[in-house]
Amino acid sequence: MRLTFSTEHQRLDGDVLERPFTLALGDEEPPVPGILWTPAGTGSPTAPEPTAPAPLILLGHPPLGLDRMYPRLVERARQAAADGFAAAALELPGSGGRPPLPGADRARAELRRAVEAGEPVADETVDALVLPLVDRAVPELRAALDALLALPGIGGPVGYSGGVISIGVRLAAVEPRLAAAVLFAGSFVPRAIAEEARRVSVPLHVLLQWDDEGNDRRASLDLFDAFGSKEKTLHANMGGHTGVPPYAAEAAARFFVRHLR
Amino acid sequence: MRLTFSTEHQRLDGDVLERPFTLALGDEEPPVPGILWTPAGTGSPTAPEPTAPAPLILLGHPPLGLDRMYPRLVERARQAAADGFAAAALELPGSGGRPPLPGADRARAELRRAVEAGEPVADETVDALVLPLVDRAVPELRAALDALLALPGIGGPVGYSGGVISIGVRLAAVEPRLAAAVLFAGSFVPRAIAEEARRVSVPLHVLLQWDDEGNDRRASLDLFDAFGSKEKTLHANMGGHTGVPPYAAEAAARFFVRHLR
Repeated sequence: MRLTFSTEHQRLDGDVLERPFTLALGDEEPPVPGILWTPAGTGSPTAPEPTAPAPLILLGHPPLGLDRMYPRLVERARQAAADGFAAAALELPGSGGRPPLPGADRARAELRRAVEAGEPVADETVDALVLPLVDRAVPELRAALDALLALPGIGGPVGYSGGVISIGVRLAAVEPRLAAAVLFAGSFVPRAIAEEARRVSVPLHVLLQWDDEGNDRRASLDLFDAFGSKEKTLHANMGGHTGVPPYAAEAAARFFVRHLR
Repeated sequence: MRLTFSTEHQRLDGDVLERPFTLALGDEEPPVPGILWTPAGTGSPTAPEPTAPAPLILLGHPPLGLDRMYPRLVERARQAAADGFAAAALELPGSGGRPPLPGADRARAELRRAVEAGEPVADETVDALVLPLVDRAVPELRAALDALLALPGIGGPVGYSGGVISIGVRLAAVEPRLAAAVLFAGSFVPRAIAEEARRVSVPLHVLLQWDDEGNDRRASLDLFDAFGSKEKTLHANMGGHTGVPPYAAEAAARFFVRHLR
């Protein structure tokens, strides 16, 4: 079995079951850590008894490590569970305890330098930082979907939410089981990914922090324009990169209720 | 009394009271027609008995005449009433049975010609179409506020919603009783109005139809950027000028619930 649950699990308020797992990728790399949250009524650790299989939301997150992102992930998982959805997060390539991605540190330092100097960020820097991450993360997320959707209690449709927008763009373009995505426009996007955006056709809900000083707002608006989806919504708010207002998160939750139930 | 209710009134579903009125402006012009909607529990035509005074939303609308806009206005008034708010709409200068505004027809024809020819619309055209309307409409709306807020059953806070965005911008900049505004970015904005936007400080919720072919989207985004408000949100959707999705209207309604209750 590719997906192995930890013996540790816990029940959160509201009867949400939280189960850490590891996903074997079938190569020489160690299995990838992840967490699965399931709402009440979709199974227990000892006797998974599906009532109605829950739709699944893949929770994207910045490449800062699952442990560090846990508080924000569990809050999002709680919202998903309250709406009747399962949620899962996977450790990103190069994050947590995983081996760093080649060239990533150098590219990140160069991006930071350029942003702080008020200079444009070179395409090569964005490509070097983002493309290796996307190239590895998307197949891993698809393998996670294979394993998670095979579990009793978890079915489609599938949503993707947040994290590194380029990962979400490619996943939405290539993964037919993805029915809807909430994307957070807060990171630089390689030109190749902006081109892939034209092939995205599923309903999209894009969050943009208008006064996010580390973001290229013009590029974010161009990316929104590029998405091929007939149904797409942009919600722009103030509050800086991490200051997404509560009502914005609620609107994103309602988007998933419209599209995943 | 400046505000005179018609003898005709009707109760809509949900016990919403609809009362046409006229507002005397104290000059040689005939009184201006308007409509007031009040939720259940805030008064009757024969014996206005305020329980808790309801907040008031001024419903802006395009300059097409109250009669023609009635179906859309009553739908918005119903939503307001369901949330416990009174709502009122006033006939715009130059619309309905009111004398046309000087230069408006010529400016409108020129704007249409330029848009259809794919040419930029000249500043002079936008100014000629919009500024006379704003100059007259804003004082009339403020006079309407004076009269409506004096009624038992109607109190503050006051919201403004929709219609010609330039009217909303100036009203938000000059009217201290205005607590929050939902603005629809679908019409050309004179440069002078875009400057006034910097003085707006109340919470704003801006709706933009991303694929509205008759609109200058870049100018709409620049206007959003110019607003001085610390709390402002932009919701952009697809669907053309008149295709605002239902969930977008619901989000605007929730904005008023957050700010007017």
